[in-house]
Amino acid sequence: MHTSLKNDQFLRACLRQSTEHTPMWLMRQAGRYLPEYCATRAKAGSFMGLATNTDFATEVTLQPLDRYPLDAAILFSDILTVPDAMGLGLSFTQGEGPKFEKVVRDDAAVAALQVPDMNRLRYVFDAVASIRKALNGRVPLIGFSGSPWTLACYMVEGGGSDDYRRVKGLMYSRPDLMHRILEVNALSVAAYLNEQIKAGAQAVMIFDSWGGVLADGAFQQFSLAYTAKVLAHVQTHHEGQQIPRIVFTKGGGLWLQEMNALDCEVLGLDWTANLGHARALVGGQVGGPGKALQGNIDPNVLFAPPEQIANEARRVLESFGPPHTDPHTTGPTHIFNLGHGISQFTPPEHVAALVEAVHSHSRQMRRS
Amino acid sequence: MHTSLKNDQFLRACLRQSTEHTPMWLMRQAGRYLPEYCATRAKAGSFMGLATNTDFATEVTLQPLDRYPLDAAILFSDILTVPDAMGLGLSFTQGEGPKFEKVVRDDAAVAALQVPDMNRLRYVFDAVASIRKALNGRVPLIGFSGSPWTLACYMVEGGGSDDYRRVKGLMYSRPDLMHRILEVNALSVAAYLNEQIKAGAQAVMIFDSWGGVLADGAFQQFSLAYTAKVLAHVQTHHEGQQIPRIVFTKGGGLWLQEMNALDCEVLGLDWTANLGHARALVGGQVGGPGKALQGNIDPNVLFAPPEQIANEARRVLESFGPPHTDPHTTGPTHIFNLGHGISQFTPPEHVAALVEAVHSHSRQMRRS
Repeated sequence: MHTSLKNDQFLRACLRQSTEHTPMWLMRQAGRYLPEYCATRAKAGSFMGLATNTDFATEVTLQPLDRYPLDAAILFSDILTVPDAMGLGLSFTQGEGPKFEKVVRDDAAVAALQVPDMNRLRYVFDAVASIRKALNGRVPLIGFSGSPWTLACYMVEGGGSDDYRRVKGLMYSRPDLMHRILEVNALSVAAYLNEQIKAGAQAVMIFDSWGGVLADGAFQQFSLAYTAKVLAHVQTHHEGQQIPRIVFTKGGGLWLQEMNALDCEVLGLDWTANLGHARALVGGQVGGPGKALQGNIDPNVLFAPPEQIANEARRVLESFGPPHTDPHTTGPTHIFNLGHGISQFTPPEHVAALVEAVHSHSRQMRRS
Repeated sequence: MHTSLKNDQFLRACLRQSTEHTPMWLMRQAGRYLPEYCATRAKAGSFMGLATNTDFATEVTLQPLDRYPLDAAILFSDILTVPDAMGLGLSFTQGEGPKFEKVVRDDAAVAALQVPDMNRLRYVFDAVASIRKALNGRVPLIGFSGSPWTLACYMVEGGGSDDYRRVKGLMYSRPDLMHRILEVNALSVAAYLNEQIKAGAQAVMIFDSWGGVLADGAFQQFSLAYTAKVLAHVQTHHEGQQIPRIVFTKGGGLWLQEMNALDCEVLGLDWTANLGHARALVGGQVGGPGKALQGNIDPNVLFAPPEQIANEARRVLESFGPPHTDPHTTGPTHIFNLGHGISQFTPPEHVAALVEAVHSHSRQMRRS
């Protein structure tokens, strides 16, 4: 039996239930901007050394929670563990980001792709179980995966890209191959998330980090359809608890109405979206159906002095508007987050100012 | 007196007048994907050597027109000529993109900024006059500038950026300094475009290449407001001819309705936008006001075989829908373009396939 949660604000907001304040967490909250993270990473030797060691992964996942009163923890891992388990050979080179030893660009490479044996990802599920235990009910634990399209970008490009020339070239030239890659990815991601849930993840998030680079039409066909396929295979409950599912497409604001049809509880938004407009489109009414919204302050706000950070945090909260406060029903809710991962150059004390501003102003919004 | 135009389809479409086919040109159509461009650039020695030499600039501007039946020429130049003329010291390093010797990040640097003497940009206006003469009425010539915000990005960052940390940091920390930079940029860009018009540019385009990296709220305040300021100072007519003005914000699809209020004739769209949706929002009705729309095929489509290129071109034309055909009034019009600059890796023969598909299919759409 798991310990009951001391702070369930995040899970409540995911399910569009009223909360005392607007819960918040930060994408990439365990990361290089924290000196204690850098110390652990140095001990681990490499990024994958960190991610594959249960103790280190647990340690760094909890570090931001020890500094800031955040409302959720997120598994420390990488979105590329799944293609690595497919045998593509992931490595991280200093300053250059992820690289795959093998790329998937032709008939033979696509034909060889398979849903990986989940035992090859055991280190991730062990980390989930260990983190959940270490959290001891402080806050809920979020598991995650890259979306099928986002994984495909790296698998075809062989690493990061600034033009997505190879993956889009393949998509436009050989849509049959691209669909096959995405099909394998969707089933892999679903199996991966289900194992994370079994190991103790209390919510799961799909990072469609590169969905926004697709053209209208291509997005629906090559990203959204496969995110929907993942969701169709991910379990919605575990040990009697509902497991909220969050989908975040960076640069996907134009497709919000189409994303509303996804079978998930929460939609994440980047900073280009207007939360008030998004709420009107997909947030629903009190007592009616809808999606919870997560986002969306520009991470670069954290380079301004604390006073401006507080102003911008208030602006984002006000753009969503007053959250619903009826304890007897569901309604529009907001989970505060960045619109993208936190920068490694962020001053840690500025994060404290952001968390304080969000919690205090969102409490005030509920009183007035 | 200038020669009258042999092909005025582009200018007609800008003014929402009916055309025989959907006119098209390509952002960065004079560029590295053309071997003849590379040959001229090799002779010139450097990018700025090319841009500052009237004969070379004329030569490369006309190269794509000699290969393809495009409906417009665009001045060969760079968006960073204006901050260079402000004294920031522009250079291009092989493979690393533009670099400024001086950056604008503090009170002193901002205080020193001034609208540059337009004589320092004489090489650009000389190129415009020379190109206009060489075109001899084949197609109209488009002049251009970066938007105030986009120029500011480079001036503060000192070059390209993948996170806009410095320029956004300044914007959030010291909005007063940012507004001052943007004010100088807006007046500089307006003067620059007016000189291009005087020298012979028959339409002008403002490239807000980095407007889309801004947060909702910040975009309106720091990009859109200053694009509007430029437009307020750019002349609308020259020698009895109307000079259409095109505004393109990459990643700006979410703000299309707000951009509709700009005093310009054409709005450019990247590939994430749906042209049919954009037409419904801002394209107007036959006989009523509205904006012409320019865009928006993904440049990566050009890596697919010619048959798929033609399919995708038809898809983009059909997404805009049937253009109006009433010769006696104005109505919704479409100028076909890429959603961003053409890739240097594009096979030149694929561009021929695109131009052919757009012209033939758009003629067919007008017949049915």
